Amino acid sequence: MVVGCGFGGLTAAKALAKLPVQLTLIDRRNHHLFQPLLYQVATAGLSPADIAMPIRAVFRGRRNVRVLLGEVTGIDTSSRTVQMGDHRVTYDILVVATGARHAYFGHDEWEPFAPGLKQIEDALDIRRRILMALERAEASDDAEERRRLLTFAIVGAGPTGVELAGAIAELAKVALAMDFRSIDPREARVLLIEAGERVLPAFPPSVSDCAHAALTALGVEVMTRTAVTGCSADGVSIAARFIPAATVLWAAGVMASRASVWLNAAHDRAGRVHVQVDLTLPDHPEIFVIGDTASVAGADGRPLPGLAPVAKQQGAYVASAVRARLGGGTIGPFVYRNLGSLATIGRGRAVADFGWLRLHGSIAWLLWGLVHIAFLIGFRNRIVVLLDWLWSYVTFKRGARLITGPTGGATPDSPSL
Amino acid sequence: MVVGCGFGGLTAAKALAKLPVQLTLIDRRNHHLFQPLLYQVATAGLSPADIAMPIRAVFRGRRNVRVLLGEVTGIDTSSRTVQMGDHRVTYDILVVATGARHAYFGHDEWEPFAPGLKQIEDALDIRRRILMALERAEASDDAEERRRLLTFAIVGAGPTGVELAGAIAELAKVALAMDFRSIDPREARVLLIEAGERVLPAFPPSVSDCAHAALTALGVEVMTRTAVTGCSADGVSIAARFIPAATVLWAAGVMASRASVWLNAAHDRAGRVHVQVDLTLPDHPEIFVIGDTASVAGADGRPLPGLAPVAKQQGAYVASAVRARLGGGTIGPFVYRNLGSLATIGRGRAVADFGWLRLHGSIAWLLWGLVHIAFLIGFRNRIVVLLDWLWSYVTFKRGARLITGPTGGATPDSPSL
Repeated sequence: MVVGCGFGGLTAAKALAKLPVQLTLIDRRNHHLFQPLLYQVATAGLSPADIAMPIRAVFRGRRNVRVLLGEVTGIDTSSRTVQMGDHRVTYDILVVATGARHAYFGHDEWEPFAPGLKQIEDALDIRRRILMALERAEASDDAEERRRLLTFAIVGAGPTGVELAGAIAELAKVALAMDFRSIDPREARVLLIEAGERVLPAFPPSVSDCAHAALTALGVEVMTRTAVTGCSADGVSIAARFIPAATVLWAAGVMASRASVWLNAAHDRAGRVHVQVDLTLPDHPEIFVIGDTASVAGADGRPLPGLAPVAKQQGAYVASAVRARLGGGTIGPFVYRNLGSLATIGRGRAVADFGWLRLHGSIAWLLWGLVHIAFLIGFRNRIVVLLDWLWSYVTFKRGARLITGPTGGATPDSPSL
Repeated sequence: MVVGCGFGGLTAAKALAKLPVQLTLIDRRNHHLFQPLLYQVATAGLSPADIAMPIRAVFRGRRNVRVLLGEVTGIDTSSRTVQMGDHRVTYDILVVATGARHAYFGHDEWEPFAPGLKQIEDALDIRRRILMALERAEASDDAEERRRLLTFAIVGAGPTGVELAGAIAELAKVALAMDFRSIDPREARVLLIEAGERVLPAFPPSVSDCAHAALTALGVEVMTRTAVTGCSADGVSIAARFIPAATVLWAAGVMASRASVWLNAAHDRAGRVHVQVDLTLPDHPEIFVIGDTASVAGADGRPLPGLAPVAKQQGAYVASAVRARLGGGTIGPFVYRNLGSLATIGRGRAVADFGWLRLHGSIAWLLWGLVHIAFLIGFRNRIVVLLDWLWSYVTFKRGARLITGPTGGATPDSPSL
């Protein structure tokens, strides 16, 4: 049984489905989400269906795979049972790949004012906030309020924060530049606030420098060594200063799913379960924990980062381990192969780091586009995304600029979001 | 000033924008919606952004056009002011094109159980209901409950009802046939319930017969001369009979927007404002009312139907009338030219009626596809929709099968939608 259908769970499930086993797949959503492009849904570049694939459709031809939609509420390791409310499902081998959520470092009260970006609903909420801030600014007669509405603060300068900041700057300064009459969206301020020393702290310093320069060229104000001390409906506090901002987005950290609680297992500060070198739980060779939910040491002794390639390699490893067991054998410990990192900064710029090769500018961006198109699941999604990108590259427009859901409206008396 | 950016308002606004006037455009949504394809969003064929176009983007190059996002709360005809909450905007000439909502003939309490299809949120809600009913059926151990979950009742057999019924039958019986393990979606029952004598009552009887046969071939159970007497969370009542159905959809009637109240104007039973032959309000030559909000007699003396071509021709007429006035002249009364009607029934079938020519089968379907692609606003949308259609035609798959928003989950104890 595989619980969770992110990159880790899906990779494991696709490989396990080819073995002579009965496979049950549980997820609380009906789709696998291509999270690396979620920021493009949040900034009106892509539609949700472009980056999501129904899990049932992936396994439609596999009669040995059963897909259950539902929320896991507990795991009983002694009876080998997964609980989903009143419903119980038993397993022989369990793969836990339930991912992570954004975390507020003990300040969960900031969440309503500074949403994070993990699911489709998050992306649609952020898209609504960004577009509604511009609409309200257009309708406002108050210069100070207009300035607040046109200020976008992104907290955290990892890949998600950098990509969001670049995409918002581009949306306001290029795509929407001609669409308003009372305001000039090019006056929008986009702040990228990072507590650490530099943007993209997981990349080498030279890559960070390139990204920093590209962001600045796009008009993003990068603030490093700046810790956020508060978020409210009015803006964001950094040390003694308060910055009025209608839109504050959170990209500063994640917390693993509740798997460590379900499994009653040892975990690190981010809630990630400590697993053995074969990704199993101590004393439970039948339970694998992978992806953002697991804490696994890399070659340098530090825990591996929460990235798609790590989860996918772990998923593939689990399937290999199960295949070996079916044949009565075993395989060696899991070893992560770093195939490089990529991040994009707006239209036509990106940074890439392969260890032996570092790229930036257009060539890294082209590579970034090719890699993401290639990894997108489902033939249709690839073509639609490619077409959307070409279209917006040529026309400078965004195709998915819809405000849906509860908006209120842009009149001055409308309720705040 | 134009209020409402549906087919009527948008057509008027696009033509008025070319005149030497200052144009204000008010809508409570930021997008124009191509409503004839909304049922395809509801049945997971298209994404919302495929059939919606940001209003600002349509007028980006027109400096004389101001777009306001907001809800009209009243109109003061003596001071020539439109009210949006605390905000007031004055006009010299006003075009009211605020459309219609679905109506329950005095049974508004049915709405939560039998949602209608007018906006993007409606379509996403219906998509969620359809897909969740299948998921719950897959998770259920109770044969009777499974039958209820696999019963889809559509009330009203106008174009929307017919298209919805055909698309749901196809979704369950073809697109999803291989995706479940406990249930066989081909066992789904799709009921189309119509109080009148035949499906598509606005078409000639021969077209109705073709549509009826095509629906039956798709496995839809068509029930004409059948009035619905109740809708609940458990199903739908028709006279003395109760049909258990988890999904009930409403396509039986519409009610005009509140324009007649704002304008304190005479109106028909469906709330449509009675206008003069030049589409203006009596004693108010500066106020035009068009589209689903207006009651205008056709050549046969009966009021024109609430269709996109009617609204578009009225929008164009208003712009011509204003242009004539600017030159000091007038134009003759509005005359509707019926260019034909089209409706589609699932994959590869449609009916078309041009008065002088009636078509059905594949050729009508191809025509239907071409016409809808041609009328879709925005170059990108046309290509993306065409591609989505080709893709699902070739693969029998649906691309937008996402369950988003508050779903609960499919476990037996999950909250009802």
